[in-house]
Amino acid sequence: MTKSRKIIIDTDPGQDDAVAILLALASPELDVLGITTVAGNVPLSLTSRNARIVCELAGRPDIPVYAGCEAPLVRPLVTAEYVHGKSGLDGIVLPDPKMALTDGHAVDFLIETLRKEAPGSVTLCPIGPLTNIATALRQAPDIAPRIAEIVLMGGAYFEVGNVTPAAEFNIYVDPEAAGIVFKSGVPLVVMPLDVTHKVLTTRARVEAFRGLGTQVGHAVASWTDFFERYDMAKYGSEGAPLHDPCTIAYLLKPNLFTGRHINVEIETEGRFTTGMTVADWWRVSNREANAMFIGDVDAEGFYALLTERLAHL
Amino acid sequence: MTKSRKIIIDTDPGQDDAVAILLALASPELDVLGITTVAGNVPLSLTSRNARIVCELAGRPDIPVYAGCEAPLVRPLVTAEYVHGKSGLDGIVLPDPKMALTDGHAVDFLIETLRKEAPGSVTLCPIGPLTNIATALRQAPDIAPRIAEIVLMGGAYFEVGNVTPAAEFNIYVDPEAAGIVFKSGVPLVVMPLDVTHKVLTTRARVEAFRGLGTQVGHAVASWTDFFERYDMAKYGSEGAPLHDPCTIAYLLKPNLFTGRHINVEIETEGRFTTGMTVADWWRVSNREANAMFIGDVDAEGFYALLTERLAHL
Amino acid sequence: MTKSRKIIIDTDPGQDDAVAILLALASPELDVLGITTVAGNVPLSLTSRNARIVCELAGRPDIPVYAGCEAPLVRPLVTAEYVHGKSGLDGIVLPDPKMALTDGHAVDFLIETLRKEAPGSVTLCPIGPLTNIATALRQAPDIAPRIAEIVLMGGAYFEVGNVTPAAEFNIYVDPEAAGIVFKSGVPLVVMPLDVTHKVLTTRARVEAFRGLGTQVGHAVASWTDFFERYDMAKYGSEGAPLHDPCTIAYLLKPNLFTGRHINVEIETEGRFTTGMTVADWWRVSNREANAMFIGDVDAEGFYALLTERLAHL
Amino acid sequence: MTKSRKIIIDTDPGQDDAVAILLALASPELDVLGITTVAGNVPLSLTSRNARIVCELAGRPDIPVYAGCEAPLVRPLVTAEYVHGKSGLDGIVLPDPKMALTDGHAVDFLIETLRKEAPGSVTLCPIGPLTNIATALRQAPDIAPRIAEIVLMGGAYFEVGNVTPAAEFNIYVDPEAAGIVFKSGVPLVVMPLDVTHKVLTTRARVEAFRGLGTQVGHAVASWTDFFERYDMAKYGSEGAPLHDPCTIAYLLKPNLFTGRHINVEIETEGRFTTGMTVADWWRVSNREANAMFIGDVDAEGFYALLTERLAHL
Repeated sequence: MTKSRKIIIDTDPGQDDAVAILLALASPELDVLGITTVAGNVPLSLTSRNARIVCELAGRPDIPVYAGCEAPLVRPLVTAEYVHGKSGLDGIVLPDPKMALTDGHAVDFLIETLRKEAPGSVTLCPIGPLTNIATALRQAPDIAPRIAEIVLMGGAYFEVGNVTPAAEFNIYVDPEAAGIVFKSGVPLVVMPLDVTHKVLTTRARVEAFRGLGTQVGHAVASWTDFFERYDMAKYGSEGAPLHDPCTIAYLLKPNLFTGRHINVEIETEGRFTTGMTVADWWRVSNREANAMFIGDVDAEGFYALLTERLAHL
Repeated sequence: MTKSRKIIIDTDPGQDDAVAILLALASPELDVLGITTVAGNVPLSLTSRNARIVCELAGRPDIPVYAGCEAPLVRPLVTAEYVHGKSGLDGIVLPDPKMALTDGHAVDFLIETLRKEAPGSVTLCPIGPLTNIATALRQAPDIAPRIAEIVLMGGAYFEVGNVTPAAEFNIYVDPEAAGIVFKSGVPLVVMPLDVTHKVLTTRARVEAFRGLGTQVGHAVASWTDFFERYDMAKYGSEGAPLHDPCTIAYLLKPNLFTGRHINVEIETEGRFTTGMTVADWWRVSNREANAMFIGDVDAEGFYALLTERLAHL
Repeated sequence: MTKSRKIIIDTDPGQDDAVAILLALASPELDVLGITTVAGNVPLSLTSRNARIVCELAGRPDIPVYAGCEAPLVRPLVTAEYVHGKSGLDGIVLPDPKMALTDGHAVDFLIETLRKEAPGSVTLCPIGPLTNIATALRQAPDIAPRIAEIVLMGGAYFEVGNVTPAAEFNIYVDPEAAGIVFKSGVPLVVMPLDVTHKVLTTRARVEAFRGLGTQVGHAVASWTDFFERYDMAKYGSEGAPLHDPCTIAYLLKPNLFTGRHINVEIETEGRFTTGMTVADWWRVSNREANAMFIGDVDAEGFYALLTERLAHL
Repeated sequence: MTKSRKIIIDTDPGQDDAVAILLALASPELDVLGITTVAGNVPLSLTSRNARIVCELAGRPDIPVYAGCEAPLVRPLVTAEYVHGKSGLDGIVLPDPKMALTDGHAVDFLIETLRKEAPGSVTLCPIGPLTNIATALRQAPDIAPRIAEIVLMGGAYFEVGNVTPAAEFNIYVDPEAAGIVFKSGVPLVVMPLDVTHKVLTTRARVEAFRGLGTQVGHAVASWTDFFERYDMAKYGSEGAPLHDPCTIAYLLKPNLFTGRHINVEIETEGRFTTGMTVADWWRVSNREANAMFIGDVDAEGFYALLTERLAHL
């Protein structure tokens, strides 16, 4: 058997974060070294609670979960209970987690792990605001060349924003942190709304989760039922985008995705555009490419992979 | 016969501006009170020259042409010879104009005309940077409620920018002027790149112009041949977008177009996004609608109209 | 007798503007070609009224007064009734003006006059927001090299702001206009708060005005009495700064003033500093000098000149 | 004997930082828990080296010195070798330090110390860019109410900037960090250039240092000789401002200083003003007071204190 890939998931669950975590834990190709939590969809105390609920749901209370930053680098926190519900995991009532948070700060865990593991062996999967990742990069610049890759969910281009007309939520919440990550020189793969809006939770797909007949399948279907109400009302779409699992799916089957290696800048000074990922898709500027910006996905392949893997839990 | 609609075309020709002017002059439904020129695609001296060349090509040396502002409200001028060629009308050599510019400044002509004509009887068609229009609105705020409508070419949303990754040229050149126009309270119809990139100059369409067998048809085909080289190389498209004639086509056949009445703000402070039309297509913000933002066009209908009308010249 | 110097006063009266106008009209060395009014301390309709009241008070109903811009270039108007009172000339009740405004827009008068008079023969004295001057410079760039000098009241450096902690009122109201003027290449002399706060209306000085025993002396003393209440309460000073007359005094006796020829930039993008005159007094930057920034004044000499001249009216 | 006050000095030595450290170590009223270093006047490796050189010069190799952040929160590092020389301590050659840096990151030391010590018992003295302090406050918000006071050197008001026309170096280097500190709610005392330019190193004062006849006195005199050349050339002053020791002097003898408790905002978005401390000295805005902004100092008293204390080392 081939060696599995070491990853750290940095997250603010969030129903779609939860599905991403489940997908990772269900996949033997991935070795989840730990989960770090950050404030985003809901405050830190809830994301730290939700991450543990999801680990226990997956039968993996052994995964270390570290709490991270309570607030963005330089701005006040903005949350999204209007999408995710008050708990962040509305849709099904799950028991309080029994497992404790691991001692220590998420930023310290990131730094120490990257220093300890072999260079180029650890991939980061940030699926919330980039505060923890940016803080680690600033506090310990030596870790940057040791990161294999950062595969993140965030941003938007043709599909434009969800939290403002120009910005996607994860980047909007902490644009300065995003700016640091996008300028870090670490290889980046970016899953923007352009992609995630192509993997919609249609009825058939939700029922396929439920049809697994497992607790996990039931929870994922219930979350999705809750979660999709917002997008269906807002965009008139036939389901919700399952944003965050795209990052894990990319690690498992990169061929499901296509994109362009282009320059992406983070706007931090605009009056109407702060938090926008300014992606130079057409190479209009002369700025150097710094990210693989994903533009398309095989949605059927994505859902087949997801459902097949969730069946293992 | 029904009364024709009074319009003033504010322009920086440019090949596509020239086609827009020809379309207007070929259409009995429109009464072109005058043409005002502005710096944009090329400097003012050239746009003022080109506007007259086009009038003469159309056999209309009687149209008053007024020179306007040499530079944007608060920024230095940026031009686009890399698209339009050094003259702004590269592609065919046409004789120097014999008709003179009319005395007086374009801004004064705009103000005086709007004060003289019946309220609500004059429509403005700006197809370059909005410097002249904004200056008139600032200098004589009493004209705002007298304008029937402003039907302009500018901006971008899903299609994003052409001059920077986020901005379309006309708005980028004078974003402060655009901000004034978009906040003026005057009814606005906006033709963004999203639309104009759907009316591409395919081979068949260009040949239809040439096939008219007229001087005008020949000139339009020649301009298009020149003009489309830039876009075909940049975007790999099968022709060039014929941006500016969309505004005139809208006046003639509004049913060719569909859009949304939404809020559109002009970013003037961004580091990477200045000049962006931040269009709230999904109504994510609570900001009030201020523009009919066109999103789609019947391209076949557009070209049929254009070719039919050009045949009259 | 030597030829007198031709000036145009651009103004938003305001009590201190009024004193500046009186000082100019009382001085045979100056030939006031006209007065142009702008929105600032109070709205345009009131500044246009007040300018005529002051001309009539000076016995000069022959001076042409042109109304100009109602609002700043790109921002909404901010006024200062809290300093100047509701009329802008609170402190004494003066009769409504009998003289009419001269037909035409202030901007057109500025452009036409500068084109008509000999190059280098006309000095502009803007003592309000710079909207009219900037609009004229943008609309007719050919006038810039024809202006002898612009001697303006505005800005602050060591003394910092009066309307915000960083900005002086005239610049704050229309920073984009100020930016245009400071980048115009026209020779500039700037009277900032640093200077005007050194020419305070002490009791003795106000009584000297009143002691003239004339209508003008009485009006100036009454205005000053009203005007100084704001500053005395705010800064605990022993009188009010007589801002605007510094410009006229400079034209009459430049040796009363000292300053440095330095770079001055206008901040238009700051969150807390918009409208600041960023004066490089210590030459910390490498930016080119563009203004004579006045730093000190012989206050006794200034008041002696002012009182002596007002006695002639 | 009364209990001494616990402080942590956060610093980027720099000659004047060095004098501040010496003053603290020479004063029994202060218990220096540790020194944290930050990038600023020179890069982190040098400031970390210099801090240890100064401890050894003071005969205090027992003081723990922790290295902190290598670069500002979101901007690239700017240094000031043009003032401090290549080493940061140019002026005298001192031996390489024998003491090692203490293991661990400065930010962790700050957090752990503030959590361990009694609430309200530890005062922070940042005399460089505020990166370490801001990072600690963001990463562990619970420490904010445990800080007794932050007494910092930074900013400018009437005296305006030294690194740009509007900004003082420490704040300019990391304005976002400064913004976090000034919004933290922790009691702040600010020593701006307005004060530090009043404590100039005149000839007599430098000779008083040298006259101590000690190694410390010799080093301080040599540093000052080097350091003052820049200011004397730039401002024509009779010596250099001894910025950083003002913070320590304030802890020892607060009555040497006077100021106002006012609102101070950090400009982070200006084109010409980024890094400015916008101090509302005249209470022009309605913003809440957040800092004791020092405006004046008894310079003779300051130098008497400094010389007397240095004599003890």
